[in-house]
Amino acid sequence: MKGNPITASMIPSIFTLANLLCGFLALILVIEKHYTIAAAMILLSVLLDSLDGKVARRLSVSSDFGKELDSLSDLVSFGVAPAILTYQAILYPLQSDYVKYIGLSIAAFFALCGAVRLARFNMLNITTHFVGVPITFAGGLLALLMLFRNMLPWYIYPVSMVILAFLMVSTFKVAKLGK
Amino acid sequence: MKGNPITASMIPSIFTLANLLCGFLALILVIEKHYTIAAAMILLSVLLDSLDGKVARRLSVSSDFGKELDSLSDLVSFGVAPAILTYQAILYPLQSDYVKYIGLSIAAFFALCGAVRLARFNMLNITTHFVGVPITFAGGLLALLMLFRNMLPWYIYPVSMVILAFLMVSTFKVAKLGK
Repeated sequence: MKGNPITASMIPSIFTLANLLCGFLALILVIEKHYTIAAAMILLSVLLDSLDGKVARRLSVSSDFGKELDSLSDLVSFGVAPAILTYQAILYPLQSDYVKYIGLSIAAFFALCGAVRLARFNMLNITTHFVGVPITFAGGLLALLMLFRNMLPWYIYPVSMVILAFLMVSTFKVAKLGK
Repeated sequence: MKGNPITASMIPSIFTLANLLCGFLALILVIEKHYTIAAAMILLSVLLDSLDGKVARRLSVSSDFGKELDSLSDLVSFGVAPAILTYQAILYPLQSDYVKYIGLSIAAFFALCGAVRLARFNMLNITTHFVGVPITFAGGLLALLMLFRNMLPWYIYPVSMVILAFLMVSTFKVAKLGK
């Protein structure tokens, strides 16, 4: 464990905080009904998330602090933001109240499974492969699907959320790409 | 570290996930402009957050998984949700675009400081006292202030957010109450 990270060791955390900032702004953009820009913000978070780890390894400044901050940012950018975006853009406008409440439950389920995944992954300390689908992939895919919402039927979104939620907390191994 | 938490060890995590669910629903309620109920949801999260730790200690099932999940939930319920609630309810309706953007920056700053605080606190592993103001207190206070928004001047909110953000990442010791 490295205490009091300064200078070079702070650089990866700047990327991580930028990731969190994009997730935060995605939520603000959802409120303002700018769903496409919100999805773009989440995709920008995916890019920033891939950079922080690379930068930390390149500079040899990987730290427990950085890992913790990364998990926290990931929950907002790839768990909460994509779930609320999908709910608001696709499920909330549906006519039936019944479908809306099921949609809200699915969105909450996705976010909660994301949190369970992150908590478990941080605890396991495995670096060679992923256990279950990474939340970055799940949230990124939902954001990507949002860009094609005029072409896809609405039910693709809740079904994808349920499948991705289960895949996040599943225990099968997924190879790590582009380390 | 306890691997594969089951049965009794899962009970505290149910409280933690309920805390996250309340934070998630607070965000949905902000979008639907139900600001008072959103603030009440955050205050309910404060209650649930105080329960998970107590239950874990009572059952002697404190775990790294539980601690991780707690931090993740806290960021959503006491960092992101109160910041977005305060921005939307108080700062967004202000006339000037200039003030709005400053307000958005302050809200984002509050959430980011909350994440830095949680990442640092989890890394330090201190159990006898808090270093800086806990995010639960900061987010809970913002939610409480929201209930009195018809009585308080608007500038109380951004000023409180800035002060609380700094206090969260400050390094002075705060006694732990009601352990």
